[in-house]
Formats: sequence, C-alpha cells, structure tokens
Amino acid sequence: MDIIDIIARKRDGAELRAEEIAFWVDGLSHGRIPDYQSAALLMAGRINGFTRRETAALTEQMLASGLRLDLSDIPGIKVDKHSTGGVGDKTSLVLMPLAAAAGLRAAKMSGRGLGHTGGTLDKLESIPGFRVDLSIAAFKEQVRQIGLAIISQSQELVPADKVLYALRDVTATVDSIPLIAASIMSKKLATGADILVLDVKYGNGALIQEIASCRELAQQMIDLAKANGVRAMAMLTSMEQPLGFAVGNALEVREALDVLEGAGPADLRSEVTLLAGGMFLLAGIAPDEQAAQDMAAHLLDHGDAREKFAAMVRAQGGCDDFSRLPRADRQIVFAAEREGWLTAFDTQAVGHAAMLLGAGRKTKEDAIDPAAGLVLQAKLGSRLRAGDTIAVLHCSETIDPAPALELLRQAVVLGEEPPAVQPLAADVIR
Amino acid sequence: MDIIDIIARKRDGAELRAEEIAFWVDGLSHGRIPDYQSAALLMAGRINGFTRRETAALTEQMLASGLRLDLSDIPGIKVDKHSTGGVGDKTSLVLMPLAAAAGLRAAKMSGRGLGHTGGTLDKLESIPGFRVDLSIAAFKEQVRQIGLAIISQSQELVPADKVLYALRDVTATVDSIPLIAASIMSKKLATGADILVLDVKYGNGALIQEIASCRELAQQMIDLAKANGVRAMAMLTSMEQPLGFAVGNALEVREALDVLEGAGPADLRSEVTLLAGGMFLLAGIAPDEQAAQDMAAHLLDHGDAREKFAAMVRAQGGCDDFSRLPRADRQIVFAAEREGWLTAFDTQAVGHAAMLLGAGRKTKEDAIDPAAGLVLQAKLGSRLRAGDTIAVLHCSETIDPAPALELLRQAVVLGEEPPAVQPLAADVIR
Repeated sequence: MDIIDIIARKRDGAELRAEEIAFWVDGLSHGRIPDYQSAALLMAGRINGFTRRETAALTEQMLASGLRLDLSDIPGIKVDKHSTGGVGDKTSLVLMPLAAAAGLRAAKMSGRGLGHTGGTLDKLESIPGFRVDLSIAAFKEQVRQIGLAIISQSQELVPADKVLYALRDVTATVDSIPLIAASIMSKKLATGADILVLDVKYGNGALIQEIASCRELAQQMIDLAKANGVRAMAMLTSMEQPLGFAVGNALEVREALDVLEGAGPADLRSEVTLLAGGMFLLAGIAPDEQAAQDMAAHLLDHGDAREKFAAMVRAQGGCDDFSRLPRADRQIVFAAEREGWLTAFDTQAVGHAAMLLGAGRKTKEDAIDPAAGLVLQAKLGSRLRAGDTIAVLHCSETIDPAPALELLRQAVVLGEEPPAVQPLAADVIR
Repeated sequence: MDIIDIIARKRDGAELRAEEIAFWVDGLSHGRIPDYQSAALLMAGRINGFTRRETAALTEQMLASGLRLDLSDIPGIKVDKHSTGGVGDKTSLVLMPLAAAAGLRAAKMSGRGLGHTGGTLDKLESIPGFRVDLSIAAFKEQVRQIGLAIISQSQELVPADKVLYALRDVTATVDSIPLIAASIMSKKLATGADILVLDVKYGNGALIQEIASCRELAQQMIDLAKANGVRAMAMLTSMEQPLGFAVGNALEVREALDVLEGAGPADLRSEVTLLAGGMFLLAGIAPDEQAAQDMAAHLLDHGDAREKFAAMVRAQGGCDDFSRLPRADRQIVFAAEREGWLTAFDTQAVGHAAMLLGAGRKTKEDAIDPAAGLVLQAKLGSRLRAGDTIAVLHCSETIDPAPALELLRQAVVLGEEPPAVQPLAADVIR
C-alpha cells in the first residue's frame, strides 16, 4: 500500500478501505508516515468528509494503537461520562460521585483545560493534595473499593490520538465531526466502561457551536459506542451561558459541593439530574426516566453523593476539609453600567476572562492559579439596575484585572426586553 | 499573522490575501513554517482551488524567494522554452539551436527526468564530455558568444519551489493547475528571458492528460508571463504517442540531429517548426506566421541550426563527433504478433518501458544508461503484418528486457480499422 495513493483517494472524495485506514494509523503511530502526509490526509478528510464506515475503522485503529483497559474483573456496572467542554462545566464533579452513590462503578480518565474551557483534572487539583497520576492498578483498585476514581488519561491509551490531535491542532483540522467522534470515542472505548453518557454542548461557549453539527456528532458517537458493545446516550445541552455561576477551578469545586449538598445553581443541578437519569436508566437501576431522576435528586439531597466525593478526595490524597480550598487575595466587582435585561453572553469571552485572571492556560506550558476565576451573580434573563453586580472576579494581587474586565464588558449584553432563554437540554440521543 | 488562520481560510474556500501568501512562502522558505502546515494548506488549495490573484501572488513570492537572473546586459532578444514533459520529447534540443541560428539568444535552464518522461539535461549528458553545471557567469558569457546555452537549473533560483515541489510530490498535491503554473512560471521568470514559448502536452503520455485542463494551465501561464512583462505563447500538443521515434537519451540526441540536418521524423520537425514560428513572430523577426515557419524550415535545411548545436556542445565540453554517441550492447526487436492497424499507444507505458531498459530513473538516486531506450518503427495509423517490427529495444547485456517487452505488448493496441489520428497541435494560446 502507498500512502500517497491513499491521500489521493481521499483528496478525490473516495471512501477509504479499512485496510487503508489501518495502514495510515499504524504508520503514523510508529513514525513511518511523516506528519506532512498525515496533515494532507487530514485536510482532505476535513474538506471531503469521512463516511460512517471510515470513522468506525479510524476509531478501531486508534483503539488498537495502544492499551485497552479491562475493567471486567471489577464487579458491577462500570460507567463513564464525557463532555465536549464548555465554560463553568463542573458536571463530572457531581455526576460521577452521584453514580457511585447509586451503586455504579464510576471510572473516569480525564484531561486538562486549554483556552476558554476548563479541565476536570485542573479543578480536582485545586483541592490541596489531590493526585490525578494514579497507576492503572491503583485506579482499578479504587473503583473496586469506593466505586469512584477520576485520574489523568494514561499515556498508554490511544497513543495515535495524541499524534493526530497535536497535528489537527496546528493544521486547522480540529473541527471535523468524524475526527472528533473518533478521537473522543477511541479514548472512551479504551477505558472499558459498560455505559457511557455524553454531554454535547452547543452554543457560543461550546467547541462546536451549531446545534445541527452537535446532533450529528452525538449520533456518530452513539453509533460508535453501540458498535463496540457500549450502552450510551447523549444529551445536547446549551452553552449559551456558563453552566452554574462559578468559572475557575477551586470556585467550581466549591459550587459542585453545593450541588452535592442538595443546593447550588438550578441549571447545574438540573443538568446533573438529567444526565444521571439517563445513566441510571441505561444501567437498569430505575424503572423509568422520572424514577431515575428522582433517585438522583434523592442521592444529592441526602448527602450520599457528597460522601462518595469526599471518599474519592481522601483516596487520592486530597484534603477533605473543603473550607481549606484556596481563595484568591483579591475580589473585584464587575457591575452593570446601566439598567437592562441580561439578554446574551459571549460565553467564550467569559471563559477567556477567567483565563486572563489565572484560571486557565493559553498554552500547554502555562501555570494555573487554582483560586482564580469569577462568580456570576446574574444569568440570562436577569433584570439588572445600574451598579448591580454581574460577577465577582477572583485573582491574585499580581494580576492586572483590567483586560479581563474589559473582555467581560464586551461579553455581556444588556437589552430592553427580557430574552427568550433556551431550555438547558435541547435533545436526547440514544 | 497566524498560519493556522491562513490554512483555515483556504480550507473554507476563501481567497488568500497577497500578504498571507507572502507570509506563507517566506515562512516555508526559511523553515519557520513546518512542512505539515504547508501540506495542509497545499491540500486545501488543491481541493478548493486558488484564484488567479492568488496564483499571481504565489508566483511573485516564489520568485522573490531567490536570485533572479538579469540578462539585460546581453545584447539581443533572449528566448526560453518550456515543455510540460512527455515521452520522446527532444524538442528543446532542436528548437533552442534553431532560435540561436535565427539570431535570438537562447538561454535555457533545464531539469532532469523522473518516471516516464525524460529530461533535457539527461539527453545532453549522453554526449561524451557535455557539462551542464556551468556557473551563471559562464552561462551568460556563452549566450553572449554563441547565442545558445542549456544548463542545469541553478539552486539559487526559486528555492521556495524546491521545498514546495518536494512536498507536493509526497502529499498528492502535484496536479493543481495554479500550483503547476506558479511552479513553472516562477522558474521561467527567474531566468530573465524576454520571450517564452510553452509546449503544453495533453494525452495519455502527458502529466496532465485532459486537454481542457491543459488549456487552462496554458492560459494561466500566459497571463503570468504577460503580468511580468514577458511575451509568451503556448501550444497544446498531443502526447497520445511518443514524439518522433526515439525514446532514450543518446537515441533522442541522434534523432534531434536528424531534424537539425533537415531530416528526421515529420511530427518532431513539424512541432519544432510550429514552436519556432510562434517564437519568431513574438520576436518580430518574421512578418507573419507562415514566413516565420518558412524561416525555421530554412535554418534546419541549410545546417545553420545544426552548427549552433555543435557550437554549444563544444562550448560545454562535449564531443561534437556525434558518431561517438554511446550505443547499447544489445538490440532486441519487438514485433507485431498479428496484423492490424496501430490504433493506440499507452504512451506512459512506452516511457516506463524505456525506463526499465535503463533510459530513465524511478527514483532521483537511480543511474541512467545513456545508450538505453527504444526506437519505434511504427506510429499511430501504421498498418502492420504479423512479425513486422514495432520497435527496436536498446539496452545493456546486464538488463533483462522481458519486463519492458511485456509492458510494450500491453502498451500497443492493434485494431481492425485505421484510427482517426488527432492533429499534433490542437491549439495555440497567446
């Protein structure tokens, strides 16, 4: 087989055969196919598309490039969750303990944040002492013991995705639905869960903004899960505004704890309950959707989920006295300059503002300030008077908050009429 | 400027601005932009196309990447010629001496052959002692003295094209008309001629087989020449069969000498006369097309062109006793197995057969046997009986001719009816 012929076929819009995709993925994983040839093939596929069969073959070959976890020696139903990422998305911090509290085995490998979206690992690491670099053996043992572990993605899983993702990132080929589906699903399938819940975010704070594209991505991921014997559901949820109020690592952990204690922002609690409902139904531990959601609400309101969270924190070396979460030196009020209804957020800009305050990374090498970020006091549909607080910014004394404030000023739209706020969950795909 | 944004814009079908193209070409020439990003941009452009403005900017930036020859201190009209390449194409070996014989200054930098097409340099180097690696100063001095020099492309001219071409070759992005036009024209414009004659080959032995694509390429090249103050014409000529009878380096030099002596194959003489006619008309040394072609015929028939060829050979260190051109150890007859009309050639396969006999290179590192090749004794429209010679193969004793013979057997179609043979020159574009 000749990689130039394979590139030429994709360039001309042909469907690649499974053997051709295998030849490519194996070649790029082992350095036999140089990056420039993979880049040309990625761009040809980004423009001309990949068929469902190609996406399935790509996912399979990416899976085959590395280790695949076997969780079958852990008793019980193993569950995992993935979000395509957004601003203030701390859902995993609540949903995974909730699953464990329901008797499921919540085994999650997670990533770090880059740009305007935060990463689950960064949030957990804001808890003093919390370790995410567990061995696979320790990870499995913790899932067996307490039913819950969240650690960093093992380097041994899906090495081909690391090569491909790094290349896509610098060749303007990230936004290909088949490539996104294959990248996410190869990593999720490699982790070995029985049940997978997917949270696909749409709207101006999401990586893929168009809801039609999100629906297509969700459907492709569900199909890949089913083809690999994994029960899955996906929810399309709005990222037209940050989820909850808090954006920033320790701030988000604190907010997740509020929800784990039966309180917290309504949208976050609602999203967690919906996702948990879908998960419980797939697991067969609830007779119907309503009963599943009621079970989730009960486990939040009675402290069962919070207890699991604390157990995970202790098991991973963290301090479970959450009053000791880091706090920023400085708090700055961002207030409304005039009266009006909060009609729109530029949600990405809110994420960037938090990043500028120290909560996120612009490049992989940047350090994070775990205490930094912002807490909204108004959401879409809020009625504000001049001088009302829209958000409180948290940052260190060493940071100039002016650029973040300027960004926020542009990111918040005040209008004359109350906005029509979209429902949080637009659709469920099974 | 950010190269990822530029790639994304071309991916989405936008027209790149001249500054963006300059940023790219400068970055790739100086190693600031890695090959994988250029590969992604090339594929996006190959699929989505480049506009005329983009092609003009690309040509200009490629020109700017290196040295540009100034021939203005050589008196007279400087002429150059380019062919898109074919099988048995020894036109330059006749046309350039003919131009010099007409009092023009024929200054040509040329390339080597790869795959099924031969290179002018390889042909000239089959002449014992002939040197193609002249300095630019020696090249110009020879053009000044005898009006004729053909040397190898200087490494200092259009270095960006070398990088880009090498990358296109391995990323299935060679066959882009704008990229071909920019590559050819940047090199031709860098050589500094006043007049340029383009021979664009179509048909099954050509690099671009479709005549419509050839016409588009010709038009784009003519426009680029005009925009840069160069007078140019292009002829679309058939490569549905080898040009002349000989395919192989010394064999082609011998055939070129036949034409330079007023004899030789009719199609080769006709093509040279047509191209020379166009060139003489552009140079204003003939009042009309017919007079220009008559002048060319006269210079061939009276030995003036042959004398210039011999003078060039001597000036470049070659032996002008052409009876000493290398001859192969072995000659093998390829005969018709049954009677019929020669209705079609697979011209690329004829070129490959010559390559297998030692006349060409499969990879850049391969050595060439200057004596090897084949000489046709039949062309399209020939009536053959079983046992009639179609071609004589020339090769060394160390070569097994069986694969070449097998290829030729498949490359020649004998039919029941005489074929309708296309005219050699399909169109002229000015």
